[in-house]
Amino acid sequence: MISVGIVGASGYTGEELVKILSMHPDVSLDVLTSRTHVGKSVCDVYKDIEITKEFQEPEIDNLSNCDVVFFASPNGVAMSMAEELVEKKVKIIDISADFRISDVNVWEKWYGQKHGCPELIENSIYGLPEIKNQKEKIADAKIVANPGCYPTSSLLSLAPLLTSIDKQRIIINATSGISGAGRNLNPDLLFAPGTENYQAYAIAKHRHYPEMLDQINLLNKDIDLLFVPHLSSIERGIYSTHYLTVKNLNLDNIYQIYYNYYKDCEFVQVIDKTFPKVAQVNHTNNCMLSLFASSESDDDFNLVIISAIDNLIKGASGQAVQNMNIMFSLSESKGLTNL
Amino acid sequence: MISVGIVGASGYTGEELVKILSMHPDVSLDVLTSRTHVGKSVCDVYKDIEITKEFQEPEIDNLSNCDVVFFASPNGVAMSMAEELVEKKVKIIDISADFRISDVNVWEKWYGQKHGCPELIENSIYGLPEIKNQKEKIADAKIVANPGCYPTSSLLSLAPLLTSIDKQRIIINATSGISGAGRNLNPDLLFAPGTENYQAYAIAKHRHYPEMLDQINLLNKDIDLLFVPHLSSIERGIYSTHYLTVKNLNLDNIYQIYYNYYKDCEFVQVIDKTFPKVAQVNHTNNCMLSLFASSESDDDFNLVIISAIDNLIKGASGQAVQNMNIMFSLSESKGLTNL
Amino acid sequence: MISVGIVGASGYTGEELVKILSMHPDVSLDVLTSRTHVGKSVCDVYKDIEITKEFQEPEIDNLSNCDVVFFASPNGVAMSMAEELVEKKVKIIDISADFRISDVNVWEKWYGQKHGCPELIENSIYGLPEIKNQKEKIADAKIVANPGCYPTSSLLSLAPLLTSIDKQRIIINATSGISGAGRNLNPDLLFAPGTENYQAYAIAKHRHYPEMLDQINLLNKDIDLLFVPHLSSIERGIYSTHYLTVKNLNLDNIYQIYYNYYKDCEFVQVIDKTFPKVAQVNHTNNCMLSLFASSESDDDFNLVIISAIDNLIKGASGQAVQNMNIMFSLSESKGLTNL
Amino acid sequence: MISVGIVGASGYTGEELVKILSMHPDVSLDVLTSRTHVGKSVCDVYKDIEITKEFQEPEIDNLSNCDVVFFASPNGVAMSMAEELVEKKVKIIDISADFRISDVNVWEKWYGQKHGCPELIENSIYGLPEIKNQKEKIADAKIVANPGCYPTSSLLSLAPLLTSIDKQRIIINATSGISGAGRNLNPDLLFAPGTENYQAYAIAKHRHYPEMLDQINLLNKDIDLLFVPHLSSIERGIYSTHYLTVKNLNLDNIYQIYYNYYKDCEFVQVIDKTFPKVAQVNHTNNCMLSLFASSESDDDFNLVIISAIDNLIKGASGQAVQNMNIMFSLSESKGLTNL
Repeated sequence: MISVGIVGASGYTGEELVKILSMHPDVSLDVLTSRTHVGKSVCDVYKDIEITKEFQEPEIDNLSNCDVVFFASPNGVAMSMAEELVEKKVKIIDISADFRISDVNVWEKWYGQKHGCPELIENSIYGLPEIKNQKEKIADAKIVANPGCYPTSSLLSLAPLLTSIDKQRIIINATSGISGAGRNLNPDLLFAPGTENYQAYAIAKHRHYPEMLDQINLLNKDIDLLFVPHLSSIERGIYSTHYLTVKNLNLDNIYQIYYNYYKDCEFVQVIDKTFPKVAQVNHTNNCMLSLFASSESDDDFNLVIISAIDNLIKGASGQAVQNMNIMFSLSESKGLTNL
Repeated sequence: MISVGIVGASGYTGEELVKILSMHPDVSLDVLTSRTHVGKSVCDVYKDIEITKEFQEPEIDNLSNCDVVFFASPNGVAMSMAEELVEKKVKIIDISADFRISDVNVWEKWYGQKHGCPELIENSIYGLPEIKNQKEKIADAKIVANPGCYPTSSLLSLAPLLTSIDKQRIIINATSGISGAGRNLNPDLLFAPGTENYQAYAIAKHRHYPEMLDQINLLNKDIDLLFVPHLSSIERGIYSTHYLTVKNLNLDNIYQIYYNYYKDCEFVQVIDKTFPKVAQVNHTNNCMLSLFASSESDDDFNLVIISAIDNLIKGASGQAVQNMNIMFSLSESKGLTNL
Repeated sequence: MISVGIVGASGYTGEELVKILSMHPDVSLDVLTSRTHVGKSVCDVYKDIEITKEFQEPEIDNLSNCDVVFFASPNGVAMSMAEELVEKKVKIIDISADFRISDVNVWEKWYGQKHGCPELIENSIYGLPEIKNQKEKIADAKIVANPGCYPTSSLLSLAPLLTSIDKQRIIINATSGISGAGRNLNPDLLFAPGTENYQAYAIAKHRHYPEMLDQINLLNKDIDLLFVPHLSSIERGIYSTHYLTVKNLNLDNIYQIYYNYYKDCEFVQVIDKTFPKVAQVNHTNNCMLSLFASSESDDDFNLVIISAIDNLIKGASGQAVQNMNIMFSLSESKGLTNL
Repeated sequence: MISVGIVGASGYTGEELVKILSMHPDVSLDVLTSRTHVGKSVCDVYKDIEITKEFQEPEIDNLSNCDVVFFASPNGVAMSMAEELVEKKVKIIDISADFRISDVNVWEKWYGQKHGCPELIENSIYGLPEIKNQKEKIADAKIVANPGCYPTSSLLSLAPLLTSIDKQRIIINATSGISGAGRNLNPDLLFAPGTENYQAYAIAKHRHYPEMLDQINLLNKDIDLLFVPHLSSIERGIYSTHYLTVKNLNLDNIYQIYYNYYKDCEFVQVIDKTFPKVAQVNHTNNCMLSLFASSESDDDFNLVIISAIDNLIKGASGQAVQNMNIMFSLSESKGLTNL
């Protein structure tokens, strides 16, 4: 059994993580921390999770006997505890953003704070297992930086093709369910303004932009992004529509590239001639992908790539568990096929 | 023109009130106060209301030149300002609960605070204009206590029949949209927990229970109530289903009683053989009412009375404007027919 | 492995059943029939179910080698095929209404058609396993009549108390998600009229009324029901609020009765001092139950019993699989704990 | 009073049109036709519209005394009746697609049928009054082709800038509420599959594409479009996000162009530094527009233009009434400011 600790289990992501891990056959959920709920038992806070264990304070002493600690906490918490945990040989899977960006200056600019342990950043591995050669790195990682929800959706959409395209600015028009904004007490996140609405937000200002760009430039440094996120009246789900220009490849060629790239990835489904739906991926760890040519000529055409994921699962806690499975040499989908 | 002030324009009720009054042909919206938004202009806070006036502090000096002041504030504010305003001949329409209950002891028990001006309670008039003889009292009132949303729905459902029924406990099974809980920052009111849910709450503990009972006992002191409110995944609307026992009257007789009672009330629609729908009354000041016999015998049968209103309009701000129209001798529906 | 056939897999209930059975470790999904989809493979119709098997015509020859056949078809189909299947020793679990009512005259009156095999009705067993002594009957049944969604919710709410109460008419005020109406092409079931609405329907005319009454009168023949169903803007879920009069028992006594009655029932959760929520039972086979006293005196008080289920799972396909588990001596919850 | 007839009043668009016109002070709603509802009175079909007039058959004789006839019918009806009505001096406002495309060959290819009166196409005027010089043409028109909902949203977004940009393919990423698909009985339009979903559809195949392209090429024949529509879990609203490249103009310049272009258009609101919301335009005839620069250099940058409208009002029936006001020399906003 893997002894697991979770820091920050009171947000949507933490709740989802507790649910998934509480059903995982190889996991012992030993330490759950939450500043908000300390002293309460898990089942009193989340009525549909049958765990009587109590929430504790997020302190090193409580966590240092775990095999792995997940951080589902606000940005800044993981980086304040990472050094001590790593020293004690506790593996870290950080669902917050502390280790997602390789350049600490970029991180500090976008997150508006000093980074707590810049020297650990280069030891952390970006936890998107479907990217070529990434799984091996995750298996050996001390710290896994679990990707953001939009980056998961867009990197899975673009990665297979990035080495085959020329310099350009790719447009990402994305839509998120309202849980993407977290369990924050903001009047705009109440039910009434959220229902029967649709709107853009944070154009050119969303923190997932530098994260995506960072990963994309590892594969092709000539690519820039224009990222426009929107908010929809649904609880969960990310739907990303990508616009790009591809030359000298027709749609069949491109489909072949995607089929090959994802042939061993059980959580990515490349579908043909039909549209991914948020309703089909919600409550699963799957990403559904589809490709459309926007004109009929063989070369120099615009390509539309569409993908859908559940932001709380493949975009957060499900992917974190997938990473844990890889780090502990379990089957990658253990505890994730029947959520 | 009627010079109008509004205290507390930052909640859902206040926003709705500003919208209605900004289109009212006989109203000059002179003073808008909001502790939260002081100094901001109305159109910056509510993008779809074209008023550049700025929110002020809720102070007597700012309000004392108004003809009428609406309180859309939290409970407790109206009773702290009422005395001075009444002295200055400013009429008051209180959409909060400060003047809704005739017995100050009952009020203090249910609202958990000392009442600020108990001597004014008996001068206040309960503002449900469709109740027999109430309109005349409202016309002369210095203070109108605007009814709660559930009481509006249930009193309109029951009033015509109360003098014809025997001692009993009437069951009120009611459902509210989530805006009924106000613009409070409570994690249960966020979008994610509100969507795709339905649940009861506050059984035998809701503050609208003593308010309804108070009004009902004025008409028939032998009646008790069992009030069970529920919350539904809709933005707005109140739907109340009432169960009672009627003797010696068949359904036709009862329909006749309702048709007569409401024959001059343009906002109450008594419909036959079909079901009120929240979707049909939302965004209107209407109450739709329907009656069903639950068995076929003529006497001693259970009757089901169903009504639907928009909680923010007929259940709050629309009714408040209806009361203002009556107090200033305008046509009762002025500014309310095309919301 | 249990060889399973499903007749009528194109409705919401059938889809849910295919999903649950496709994950069930002891089931081989051998025959799937659907008039609408004959010749198409399951995964083409339901993108999130990975079964390539094709839908067949609903014919006896296709089904006669199965161990058990589920009918998720419109009313009338099961009764036309039951005789031949029973003869061939194929067990039947009928999720439609053909075998739910013990008196064929009552059935024919409410369903408006001649019953196809009245002689089989007395051999069929009502499949609500939590009712005392019912599990043993289900284990031996040739035909299980799987209960309707409203009856499941209300019978679980009332059964423990029925032998302890006097003659009375119990009020059932129930609310269903829109999937309860099935995948029928009716303009009222489209998205636009369904969203942001709440309404009653079919007062005293719903076919689940005689079904509930039938079962209730087996336990206490002095009880009558007044059943008022409502429709809410949610996809799934049944929420039933029951009003009844209990004498000589206080709330603690009654809670004790419920705890005892359900102590071995893993799918029924009796909760104290808190409200069941549709959001907590949806996508599970659970029923959440709670009890409230509406006055403080010990005797002669009104009791409110509230329950919530997922209409498509505990109210239909999940319960059908629970019945199958019992009929084939499997653990009752097999394949049902992690939907 | 303008004598008005409506053909096809049973769809969402027709219902909205009846509602708006029934409140219009200068309109007499004389003839309402609906094949589906013939013989029923309007208020029996639409409970919240108080008109007792009965629906008639859609026949020329019933309509020929009207001053203007609106077609809210399926494509193909208007073109079968237009010739006779025009002959009888009845003005036509066609909310269907029969007269929207100038080239009859393009129309016949995209709509898959023979056009019924190709000779009338060139006499029809595209009814988007905010386009420069269009209002004068509408004022004199015999037939107004009322624009589609997506084209209304995108043409208002692009028109001011089209003469200032170079040859390019503009990307339109648009999202519609489910009422955009009409009151058709399609299983995908039921409540359950519509709720909690988001998806693309009809990429490069939507009939609004040739309509938009037609209008855009009148202003700049070098522009091509890539139009990707999506469906969201909301009842109504169109939200369009446009991506284009502009040279030699900074964001301030472009804002100035938009302010000038729309300075006399009361239904178009150009807003700065904030995002249009569907919730703010629904139930109004307004279009909200906003502009964003996606990089900081002055020339050769990508521009994002966002607009929101209510698909049933500004995208259909409200705009049709706006056109009627212009054709009959009324104030453009009459009957449209307080929906």
